[in-house]
Amino acid sequence: MEVFNVKSKQFDYQVVVGEGAWQTLRDFPRDHYSSIFIITEKPLWKRWGKSFVADSKLNDVRTLFVPSGETSKSLHELGLLARQLLREGADRHSLLVLFGGGVIGDLGGFLASVYMRGVDCIHVPTTILAQVDSSIGGKTAVNLGEMKNLIGTFYPAKLVLSEPRVLSSLSRRNFRSGLYEVVKHAILDGPGLFKQLDACIDSLSPENIEPLLTILPQAVRVKVRVVNRDEREANLRMVLNLGHTFGHALEEATHYRRFVHGEAVGWGLLAISRLGQRLGLLDLSEGKRIESLIWRLGSLPSIRDLPPARILRLLPQDKKTVRGRIQWVVPERIGKVRVTSDVPMKIVEATFRDIRGLSD
Amino acid sequence: MEVFNVKSKQFDYQVVVGEGAWQTLRDFPRDHYSSIFIITEKPLWKRWGKSFVADSKLNDVRTLFVPSGETSKSLHELGLLARQLLREGADRHSLLVLFGGGVIGDLGGFLASVYMRGVDCIHVPTTILAQVDSSIGGKTAVNLGEMKNLIGTFYPAKLVLSEPRVLSSLSRRNFRSGLYEVVKHAILDGPGLFKQLDACIDSLSPENIEPLLTILPQAVRVKVRVVNRDEREANLRMVLNLGHTFGHALEEATHYRRFVHGEAVGWGLLAISRLGQRLGLLDLSEGKRIESLIWRLGSLPSIRDLPPARILRLLPQDKKTVRGRIQWVVPERIGKVRVTSDVPMKIVEATFRDIRGLSD
Repeated sequence: MEVFNVKSKQFDYQVVVGEGAWQTLRDFPRDHYSSIFIITEKPLWKRWGKSFVADSKLNDVRTLFVPSGETSKSLHELGLLARQLLREGADRHSLLVLFGGGVIGDLGGFLASVYMRGVDCIHVPTTILAQVDSSIGGKTAVNLGEMKNLIGTFYPAKLVLSEPRVLSSLSRRNFRSGLYEVVKHAILDGPGLFKQLDACIDSLSPENIEPLLTILPQAVRVKVRVVNRDEREANLRMVLNLGHTFGHALEEATHYRRFVHGEAVGWGLLAISRLGQRLGLLDLSEGKRIESLIWRLGSLPSIRDLPPARILRLLPQDKKTVRGRIQWVVPERIGKVRVTSDVPMKIVEATFRDIRGLSD
Repeated sequence: MEVFNVKSKQFDYQVVVGEGAWQTLRDFPRDHYSSIFIITEKPLWKRWGKSFVADSKLNDVRTLFVPSGETSKSLHELGLLARQLLREGADRHSLLVLFGGGVIGDLGGFLASVYMRGVDCIHVPTTILAQVDSSIGGKTAVNLGEMKNLIGTFYPAKLVLSEPRVLSSLSRRNFRSGLYEVVKHAILDGPGLFKQLDACIDSLSPENIEPLLTILPQAVRVKVRVVNRDEREANLRMVLNLGHTFGHALEEATHYRRFVHGEAVGWGLLAISRLGQRLGLLDLSEGKRIESLIWRLGSLPSIRDLPPARILRLLPQDKKTVRGRIQWVVPERIGKVRVTSDVPMKIVEATFRDIRGLSD
């Protein structure tokens, strides 16, 4: 089990990664909370609720269920949950335990940040994506219409508990989807983690999470380091958007129905590798290593029908835009990226045509 | 013109009170904002927009209008505004100028705090209530159903500009409503401000705001002092709830339709004076001074039809509750209050019957 310290403007908190992480909750001071609520999804809680309660010794909790899927990340669902909390007597001294993947973490974290102007929360991420990325750093959000994460806050958890065991019940698709984010972290981190991932990626599956036990903490460390240097993304945190600029556009263009998030990031990473090469920043062999690792995860949903003009139009809508410019995060080699807004749209378009040509 | 410094966890900011306050905006560094949006109400902007633009030299702004009234403080309206901002190209480097009363400040402040996870905002309060109270201290909120301010954040403005001239277009009722909050601040502050208010209260009206020019900055100072000592209300800030525990219950019981906020606070202050006397904390003569000042503002909407049991049931719903107890702020004398949760419900009920007996 590894424990990372994360700094935030409000307070410091710990991210616990590894087998037995849930047991850490036994030592978490909970006496001063007036009540504890678990926000989760029904199938997930059915599968893991008992283990979690046994490990954490969190008795006397109430459970609120959120429908599965990205559509729950809405102001509407936020309102429903807040009403439920109120009805069940939650006050500003209540604690929310967010047990689930990215949707639960983003929505529940936002709820925690605004219910009675803020109550404490603990993240218990249950997907690879949530464990290595979204549960760390305090970003919360809901979507507005098709604009992903348009509404949100920076609101760190009091504690993050990542138990890898829980990943064994992920669907294959969801499991793989999370691995694209791990690939992203490996590109940011450097040759060491990249090689380890390269060595085991073919054997990874929900039935074989063993190799993840050493990889997950390293992927978490990448995120923790970036967050500790820049909580508010002004500069450094932007590197975490590697692969996400194209990724978000693909998700938007397909109304968030075709891809699970990681798959869109997979395409985004392929694109950014090509963009790096087209800009002369990334050399061919490094680009090939990146792309081959991504392809070894399997085929990606088709993008062949997506008109380049449409994708390009969706790019600048990205929140990371400063005064209408796109801030591209481009790899220079494995372990080094550059942030640049100086990319002609012609090259962007050619890049998208490159990856579209790779699609079924 | 007086300038107050307000400390907040995020940053310090200034509250400018007095004739010419809007001109201060000329010196506010605005070059690094990508765009500026004014959030306001149509009739108000029609009356004052030109003066504000002339004073502030804020050209090249876009204006978003919110329907007048408390019902605009909703998640629904928040979503509409966010969509509009997005459509008009607002990014995270945009600035929101919140030009209006409590509704605009609370809703607009909440919007600023969550749009793309936070953009800067400036408060330009245009009611007495907003100038002496709600624009200072960073509390933002929307209502959820009948639960007032259930959803919100702590999010200070970069600047607060209170120009008293704008109060001259308030309706008589709205004007008077704000004065109940000034009475509250005078009770918290002490005999000096209380006497000044006592001396001029009969002459105050939208047509004669002259005496307010000296009183407003003092009322603002009361709020600034409390906020500077405790931004998050854990303890000290609770004194600002003087008169609000009963006040909120009355508003809820009448579905926010019968009273404008200050009127409910008027009743709340009468109640708390009686409660203080019943508890033996406030002596008769001080209580009389408080109550007589309140009555000189005019009659209050009737509460005679409100069943005590209903009002009592609505009291603990108040957010200020810690583990289900009500924290009462009770005056001991003009200039001194005590916070206590040790008040038997029998005395609370008797107190409500006291003030109900005073009603038409």
